[in-house]
Amino acid sequence: MNETAAGDVVLLFSRDRKRFIFTLQPGAELESHHGIVAHDDLIGQPWGRRVKSHLGSTFVLLRPSTDDLIRHIKRRSQIVYPKDAGYILLKLGIRPGCRVVEAGTGSGGMTLALAQAVMPTGRVYSYDNRPEMQAVAQRNLARVGLEPYVEFKLRDVGEGLDERDADALFYDLPAPWHYLEQAAAALSDGGFWGCILPTTNQVSELLYGLGPSPFTMVEVEELILRPYKVVPARLRPQDRIVGHTGFLVFARKLAEEPPDSSPVS
Amino acid sequence: MNETAAGDVVLLFSRDRKRFIFTLQPGAELESHHGIVAHDDLIGQPWGRRVKSHLGSTFVLLRPSTDDLIRHIKRRSQIVYPKDAGYILLKLGIRPGCRVVEAGTGSGGMTLALAQAVMPTGRVYSYDNRPEMQAVAQRNLARVGLEPYVEFKLRDVGEGLDERDADALFYDLPAPWHYLEQAAAALSDGGFWGCILPTTNQVSELLYGLGPSPFTMVEVEELILRPYKVVPARLRPQDRIVGHTGFLVFARKLAEEPPDSSPVS
Amino acid sequence: MNETAAGDVVLLFSRDRKRFIFTLQPGAELESHHGIVAHDDLIGQPWGRRVKSHLGSTFVLLRPSTDDLIRHIKRRSQIVYPKDAGYILLKLGIRPGCRVVEAGTGSGGMTLALAQAVMPTGRVYSYDNRPEMQAVAQRNLARVGLEPYVEFKLRDVGEGLDERDADALFYDLPAPWHYLEQAAAALSDGGFWGCILPTTNQVSELLYGLGPSPFTMVEVEELILRPYKVVPARLRPQDRIVGHTGFLVFARKLAEEPPDSSPVS
Amino acid sequence: MNETAAGDVVLLFSRDRKRFIFTLQPGAELESHHGIVAHDDLIGQPWGRRVKSHLGSTFVLLRPSTDDLIRHIKRRSQIVYPKDAGYILLKLGIRPGCRVVEAGTGSGGMTLALAQAVMPTGRVYSYDNRPEMQAVAQRNLARVGLEPYVEFKLRDVGEGLDERDADALFYDLPAPWHYLEQAAAALSDGGFWGCILPTTNQVSELLYGLGPSPFTMVEVEELILRPYKVVPARLRPQDRIVGHTGFLVFARKLAEEPPDSSPVS
Repeated sequence: MNETAAGDVVLLFSRDRKRFIFTLQPGAELESHHGIVAHDDLIGQPWGRRVKSHLGSTFVLLRPSTDDLIRHIKRRSQIVYPKDAGYILLKLGIRPGCRVVEAGTGSGGMTLALAQAVMPTGRVYSYDNRPEMQAVAQRNLARVGLEPYVEFKLRDVGEGLDERDADALFYDLPAPWHYLEQAAAALSDGGFWGCILPTTNQVSELLYGLGPSPFTMVEVEELILRPYKVVPARLRPQDRIVGHTGFLVFARKLAEEPPDSSPVS
Repeated sequence: MNETAAGDVVLLFSRDRKRFIFTLQPGAELESHHGIVAHDDLIGQPWGRRVKSHLGSTFVLLRPSTDDLIRHIKRRSQIVYPKDAGYILLKLGIRPGCRVVEAGTGSGGMTLALAQAVMPTGRVYSYDNRPEMQAVAQRNLARVGLEPYVEFKLRDVGEGLDERDADALFYDLPAPWHYLEQAAAALSDGGFWGCILPTTNQVSELLYGLGPSPFTMVEVEELILRPYKVVPARLRPQDRIVGHTGFLVFARKLAEEPPDSSPVS
Repeated sequence: MNETAAGDVVLLFSRDRKRFIFTLQPGAELESHHGIVAHDDLIGQPWGRRVKSHLGSTFVLLRPSTDDLIRHIKRRSQIVYPKDAGYILLKLGIRPGCRVVEAGTGSGGMTLALAQAVMPTGRVYSYDNRPEMQAVAQRNLARVGLEPYVEFKLRDVGEGLDERDADALFYDLPAPWHYLEQAAAALSDGGFWGCILPTTNQVSELLYGLGPSPFTMVEVEELILRPYKVVPARLRPQDRIVGHTGFLVFARKLAEEPPDSSPVS
Repeated sequence: MNETAAGDVVLLFSRDRKRFIFTLQPGAELESHHGIVAHDDLIGQPWGRRVKSHLGSTFVLLRPSTDDLIRHIKRRSQIVYPKDAGYILLKLGIRPGCRVVEAGTGSGGMTLALAQAVMPTGRVYSYDNRPEMQAVAQRNLARVGLEPYVEFKLRDVGEGLDERDADALFYDLPAPWHYLEQAAAALSDGGFWGCILPTTNQVSELLYGLGPSPFTMVEVEELILRPYKVVPARLRPQDRIVGHTGFLVFARKLAEEPPDSSPVS
């Protein structure tokens, strides 16, 4: 589809590098410090076209990337940043058709990345025990058409996960070390497990918990994103940056040993 | 499938945290400093099972993640690291069903990440003018069953790209600024463009080239991966790390202005 | 001296981790959002004592560190950050008694670090061609009692430096590659040279300039400071940090070769 | 002194950027993979002069910077890196004439930086309970002529520090939280305290210890050094770098409250 239609999620990119992300609705208007843009002037336009506000300010009309969608998600909680989300997908071996479990849902940023990566045949099972949070996430996913690939479950992970033989499982919880048993029960043998944690204390606590658990190949990593100013004659990193989002921890579920306990030679 | 079969690509993870990635072949053997493991002892085993070499060393038998596959690709050139590949996928809006163009193929690390993200209905068109390089990439993709989703083209990008209306395009070339016209011709309006460059001089050169081009919303970013030692009582970043892989540049293709050149109000 | 006196530069550190740095003057007052503190209530107090504003807010009365002084210098320009200044001192072999040349003076942050490191027998010669800037620097140095160790020179470096056989020379100029001849003339044989540059283009330009110059052992480095939140149970890096200050370049001056041009064997 | 003399510590810098640091001794020879250089051919040469080995390899004859001296110290333990040492000096307000206490001495890298910064009128008191370690440090300081400014004390910090009213105190110990009382006793009111710790667990432990202590204005920071390749046309960070040295913690000693416990208003 080379032209926008009502219901599309669009990105308007302004001269001063601001991004406005919204759903096209006949009769609606975008108001910004650059002036007003009527949605009706955007509907039916080719993607990539320059448009003007009533004040004459220019915007470019674009499809948001997954990065844009995650960054600009309606949020009620700290989100998983795209730099982390993209890496998590590769570390957990996520691909089209995968069955992935996630807890907690939060505002749905990671849910969005997962849903888009496993669609159309895969599925995301996303747990959270905060109804208002999951409602936000649900709207965020619905807005970009990814809701059909997600099953939201309003439940505390401590009560157990319904899934068995899941390909991968991701925890965005304050104390994931309390729920390793539930994770092991839901995952396939050798399955991928990961989580994100803001503090070093939590990482240590989790590593202690993983020690006696049926998980192996534990890794702890952190990604630092350094954006640059895009001036060719004066290329330099930006002055102020995000200094920390979270520590990423990854592991794999061991299979149960056979009864005689002697592994193959 | 909960058990391995001949032809599967497997990962053996050793006690000293080494990774061995290979394809299971009846009668074959893995030789390592930990001793020999017969493939026949691995075929038909549950994933996640512990296995032993003839010297008694223990390994865990695992499915490699996309991260593992990219890191351990047979390579004849610098690869795009997983930390960068995962982020590129989100920045380029790659998802199942996308049609993506890539040049150059190199050893196929990024090709692998792209193919896995767009399969089964999408497709990757991957250009390189070095036959021996593309042969390596082709084998790398075939080994993991992703070759059906890639069309390899042995050609210099300067001669033009066959595709039109591609969703996204990624350049891993020394001088991408010479091929912006070809990129614009291949991309859909508003389409996603990205590249990776090792030096700051190349980034400046590219930014100069992008100035008068039909590309907009240019971004330059860099990701630094910091791995930690996984000792709960002595948590700390690793002593020696990869200090640099490449600078990532992203942009979007503008639509051509209509003949009267007056954008909508 | 264990008690403050009029004329001392003091640091008040507030509960919310703000720093107020000023010179004690009888009759003067510090006004802040925490209330008013009369200087007369601070004069004659022991260092390290807790004091209160008229609103009852607590501060600690401290001697500012060199780090504090540089960070909170009255500035009319970008300063050399302490993380960089401390490293520069070690890379240039600065120590008590050294004769160091600096250009440009800027707001005097680096001048302060240099003066304090070479005092009381050493000397800093600091050039700038902007009278108002050097006046600011002069006041900054006078305020902390370091002015006696600095000779300010209001002059463009292009007109040459007066010094000969200087131990070290530091440039904080936009185009240091234009003034390498002047630097070589002022430095002792084998002397230490350094500069700070914000952009990668400047670094490349300088490296080109250093190629045919009488400088050797060139190094380019960058320091990233990562502050942490000081909460023992939730240790983590701060969310927003300074992402870039400048690239540091260091080199050493070669001696002229003897007339017969054959170095010793 | 513009020419080298026997007893000088010199740096030979080779074409392949290797550094050889040693003391000039009549009759001695430097052996390297670049060939042999007789010290007698170096003694009496101008600093900054190019010299050749018996194989014709060229070196530059230089005075080592403080950075060089610390990096190439004879070591029997992890050293404090120059990037950290320079910053520590500024954070602790170290300057000529200061009286500084240090524990433990280790190989003497930080001792060297401190001694050079406080000389000739200041003094460093350096504690370590390992005789063989302190002997190494002593030789390292003697070699560069800084021993007169250091008083080495072979003692466990737990037994107390002799000094009172010290300007600053630096701990390079595994468990500094056990010795905060000793630190407070040795420091002047408002005095500067700092330490370096490799792990996050130690930092948390220390922050817990500092809570009820007579220390305030606590800061935790970390410095990451990023060296670049010095090729003007292909400027880029180096591929492999040091990823971690240590976390730096700083604090100030509070004065005891007066008996009536009511701070000045």
